[in-house]
Amino acid sequence: MKIQLALDRISIEKAIEIGEKAYNYVDIIEVGTSLIKDYGIKSIKEIKKVFLNKFVLADLKTIDEGEYEFNAAYNAGADIATVMGVAPFNTISICYEVSQRNKKTVMIDLMETEENCIKKLKQFRNAIFCIHIAKDEINKNLDKYLIKLEPIISGIPRIAVAGGVDLNILKKIHTIEPEIVIVGSAITKADDIEQASREFYYAVRSLENNNLKNKL
Amino acid sequence: MKIQLALDRISIEKAIEIGEKAYNYVDIIEVGTSLIKDYGIKSIKEIKKVFLNKFVLADLKTIDEGEYEFNAAYNAGADIATVMGVAPFNTISICYEVSQRNKKTVMIDLMETEENCIKKLKQFRNAIFCIHIAKDEINKNLDKYLIKLEPIISGIPRIAVAGGVDLNILKKIHTIEPEIVIVGSAITKADDIEQASREFYYAVRSLENNNLKNKL
Repeated sequence: MKIQLALDRISIEKAIEIGEKAYNYVDIIEVGTSLIKDYGIKSIKEIKKVFLNKFVLADLKTIDEGEYEFNAAYNAGADIATVMGVAPFNTISICYEVSQRNKKTVMIDLMETEENCIKKLKQFRNAIFCIHIAKDEINKNLDKYLIKLEPIISGIPRIAVAGGVDLNILKKIHTIEPEIVIVGSAITKADDIEQASREFYYAVRSLENNNLKNKL
Repeated sequence: MKIQLALDRISIEKAIEIGEKAYNYVDIIEVGTSLIKDYGIKSIKEIKKVFLNKFVLADLKTIDEGEYEFNAAYNAGADIATVMGVAPFNTISICYEVSQRNKKTVMIDLMETEENCIKKLKQFRNAIFCIHIAKDEINKNLDKYLIKLEPIISGIPRIAVAGGVDLNILKKIHTIEPEIVIVGSAITKADDIEQASREFYYAVRSLENNNLKNKL
C-alpha cells in the first residue's frame, strides 16, 4: 500500500517544506486542486523539480478539455493526473488515451459517480479508481460501508482511498486492500510532520506484514 | 441577452488583448478554466484589474471545496463563479451561500447533470443555470433539441447557453430567451476580433428588437 500525501490550501513553498519533512515515508506527492487553481501549472512544475524521485500526482479534477489539461499536467512533470468519474465518458476516455500515450497514469475520482457508470469505467484497466469515503460514513459504520463497497469495486485492480484518513481509519480501509491510501491533514496539520508521516509508514508496513502472515 | 466572451487556452496577456478589442460589444469577460488551471487565481486578478467596468466570470468548474474556491475567486475580483451541477448537492449549496453572502453570482454548469437533479437545483433562485449544447445536437437538429429542453429548464429565471455558438446558432437559441449567450472561438479566433464581436452585438440587438415587435 502506497501513501499519497495530499498538499492543499497552502503556498507552493509550504507544500515543498511539508513534502521534504515527509519525504522518506510517503510514495506519492499530491499537488492538490487548490494549489493548481491558486497558482496554476507552476505548482506542478515546482513541486516535481524538488521531488524528482517521487511520483507526483496533479489533482486536476478534470471534467472537460481532457486532452488539453492532461497534456499540460504531464508536460509539467506530473506522473499521475485525475479526471472526474462524473465527467462525460468521452472526456475520461481521452484522458486515458493521453495517459497511455505518455506512459503515465490516470486516476479516476469516483466522487458522486453512480454504480452503473463505474461499471462502464472498469474497461480502463490501467486506471487507478479513487474512492472518497464521506465523513458521515466514517462517523457511522465504516466496516458496513466497506462491505457494501466491495461488489461495486470488484474487478478493479487499482484502488485508491481518500477521505479524512487517520491511523484508525487506515486499519479499516486496509481490508479492501487499496493500492494507495491518500492522507492529508493527519500529516500536513500534525505538530511534527516527520513523526506523523513515519507513523503512517510503519502502520502500513505492519498491516502488510500481518496480511502476509495471514496468507501464509 | 448578454454576451459572455469566453477566453481559453491563451496567455493572460493575449486574453486581455482580445478582451480589449471586444470591449464595447460584450457584457461579461469569462476567465476560462484553462486560464485558471494554467496561471492560477492571478488570471482572475489581472483580468479584473483591466476590465473593472465589466462583469468577470471565473469558470472554476468547482466540484468540491466550494467555500474555499468561491471565496478565492470572489476575493480576486470575480463577479460570477461556476460550480458543476454534478457536484455534491452540499457543495453547490455552499457555493450559493457564499455568492449570496458576497452579493455576487453563482453559475451552475449543467454539463452531465440529470433532469431530476436539475429539478432539485431550481431552489437556487438567484443562480444562473448554464446549458451546454453538444456539437452532436447542433449538427443534428437544434430546433428539436431546444423544444425538448424547454420543460427541463421551465421555471428557471436565469439561463446561459454555451456550445460552439456562432451567428446562426445564436438565432436559434434566442427562442429559449437566455439571459446570457457564451461565445468563444467565433470571436477569439476571428481574423478581426473587433468586427466579429460587433457582429454578435448587432445580431443580439436585432433579435431583441424583433422580439419586442412580436410582443407589441
